[in-house]
Amino acid sequence: MTEVVIHEVGPRDGLQMEKAVVPFERKLEWIRGLAGAGLDIVQVGSFVHPAKVPQMADTDRLFAELRAGPLREGVVLSGLVLNEKGLERAAAAGVGLLCMGVSASETHSRKNTGMPIAEAAARIVAMAKQATAAGTRVQVSVQSAFGCGYEGAVPQERVLGLVRQYVENGITNVSLADTAGHATPDDVARIYDKVHLISPDLDCACHFHDTYGLGLANVWAAMRAGVTHVETSVAGLGGCPFTKIAGGNVCTEDFVHMLQRTGLRGDVRLEALLAIAADVAAFFGREMPGKVYKTGPIGVHVPR
Amino acid sequence: MTEVVIHEVGPRDGLQMEKAVVPFERKLEWIRGLAGAGLDIVQVGSFVHPAKVPQMADTDRLFAELRAGPLREGVVLSGLVLNEKGLERAAAAGVGLLCMGVSASETHSRKNTGMPIAEAAARIVAMAKQATAAGTRVQVSVQSAFGCGYEGAVPQERVLGLVRQYVENGITNVSLADTAGHATPDDVARIYDKVHLISPDLDCACHFHDTYGLGLANVWAAMRAGVTHVETSVAGLGGCPFTKIAGGNVCTEDFVHMLQRTGLRGDVRLEALLAIAADVAAFFGREMPGKVYKTGPIGVHVPR
Repeated sequence: MTEVVIHEVGPRDGLQMEKAVVPFERKLEWIRGLAGAGLDIVQVGSFVHPAKVPQMADTDRLFAELRAGPLREGVVLSGLVLNEKGLERAAAAGVGLLCMGVSASETHSRKNTGMPIAEAAARIVAMAKQATAAGTRVQVSVQSAFGCGYEGAVPQERVLGLVRQYVENGITNVSLADTAGHATPDDVARIYDKVHLISPDLDCACHFHDTYGLGLANVWAAMRAGVTHVETSVAGLGGCPFTKIAGGNVCTEDFVHMLQRTGLRGDVRLEALLAIAADVAAFFGREMPGKVYKTGPIGVHVPR
Repeated sequence: MTEVVIHEVGPRDGLQMEKAVVPFERKLEWIRGLAGAGLDIVQVGSFVHPAKVPQMADTDRLFAELRAGPLREGVVLSGLVLNEKGLERAAAAGVGLLCMGVSASETHSRKNTGMPIAEAAARIVAMAKQATAAGTRVQVSVQSAFGCGYEGAVPQERVLGLVRQYVENGITNVSLADTAGHATPDDVARIYDKVHLISPDLDCACHFHDTYGLGLANVWAAMRAGVTHVETSVAGLGGCPFTKIAGGNVCTEDFVHMLQRTGLRGDVRLEALLAIAADVAAFFGREMPGKVYKTGPIGVHVPR
């Protein structure tokens, strides 16, 4: 096992799925809290058209306000971009880690971007190179890397082909995203082993959904396979707008709880995360998928 | 990875926790259904005092009715016993696999049995030897093997000491039970490696609760560490009456879904399990922890 970088994606991957638009001030408070709790990277939002995704309409403003402080020193604020227009906005916003991706499913790619995979990949790789040349840290993902809500199985070779293309173009941080929640721990172990054969030095990230109860099992398998960046979502918020039943992302505080229990990270303030998760649940008025915010961490509860 | 034996414990570990007593006919239908779906072992109930645990008052009658048929050929019906009186009843009932256990936590042992660990272990080992001599298959567990709701951490050496005592007394099937749900995948990997050093040929079982979201991650770690018997509960029913917040057991149909996806078991009829889980949820009138009975298995859903 290597050191783990926790990348909180709830404010983007979670909130973009919710019907209710979270007010700017509340979102700001959550993001500051997530950063303050000690998470390494927090994804503030995506730079998409505000009329198309009103939940993300305040991304530029959030960056401005967050960068003005107060903000925990050292935390990286990431943002998602889909196209050149977003890239411009992200550069102007001062994004610390620029995230972008290409789907390994033809149907998903076309529905999501209007382009076949090859075209989408060429465009994203060009954007990544441009941002890297401008001095911005970049992470490029392969979406639907473990299966697709439209197509079902996705050939592993197609995923590895995209990774090869990224590596050949100088991309050093690659995320495999299980957009539809189809991954099993065995799939995860196998594919990251092959990714490391392509480039042993690549910073690998993982992004799982807990649709079928395998979220943390997949994360653990990924970590054993050398993955260093883990993308999770506070309270287990999240889903994918392009597949019907993608469940919540792997829950941040449940993951942090596991890391504490295994001695891998003692620096993240779990109690702060649990408070935010409870506030998220209160805001949306429903029980969230996260478990530890409901049960309390081990040691807090009083036995009968 | 080795071949997996699925031991369904919901009718015992799950139903003993529920306030509502499931009517005999409904329970019979569930157990027949679970067996019919292709699960290898089904735990029918425990042989405890009917006044103390009314949910288990019909265990003897269930065995009689189940053994009279119809019942899928080859399925093993297991039962839990706590003492000599239970052992007698189990023998009369014709139990196929006799389950018993000792807690590795002094407080849990005393609260559960009124005896310190050493005394409880001596008594259980004697019962196991007696049953084995009479030709009955026996599985002995270490309860609270990964931590205790009363005491917190449980020394690994105490767990291994019990396993050694079991092995020295000819017990060939040992289960480690995470009664309070404290295990992490790393704990699991470490302890089963040590158990196999005590006896490489031992049939090892695992029993996890999903209190903190790590249920299937722990099962996967256990399977990688050579565990062949996995105890799960339909719909994720279950808990432990001796710790306050033990969440549900690892969910049977979610586990079977994982096994199907990984190609490890194609013979269990997942749809039959999902129907039972839905019926369990309908009976108790609440959403159960299982995920796949809610989302449907991969391939069944229609994307947007």
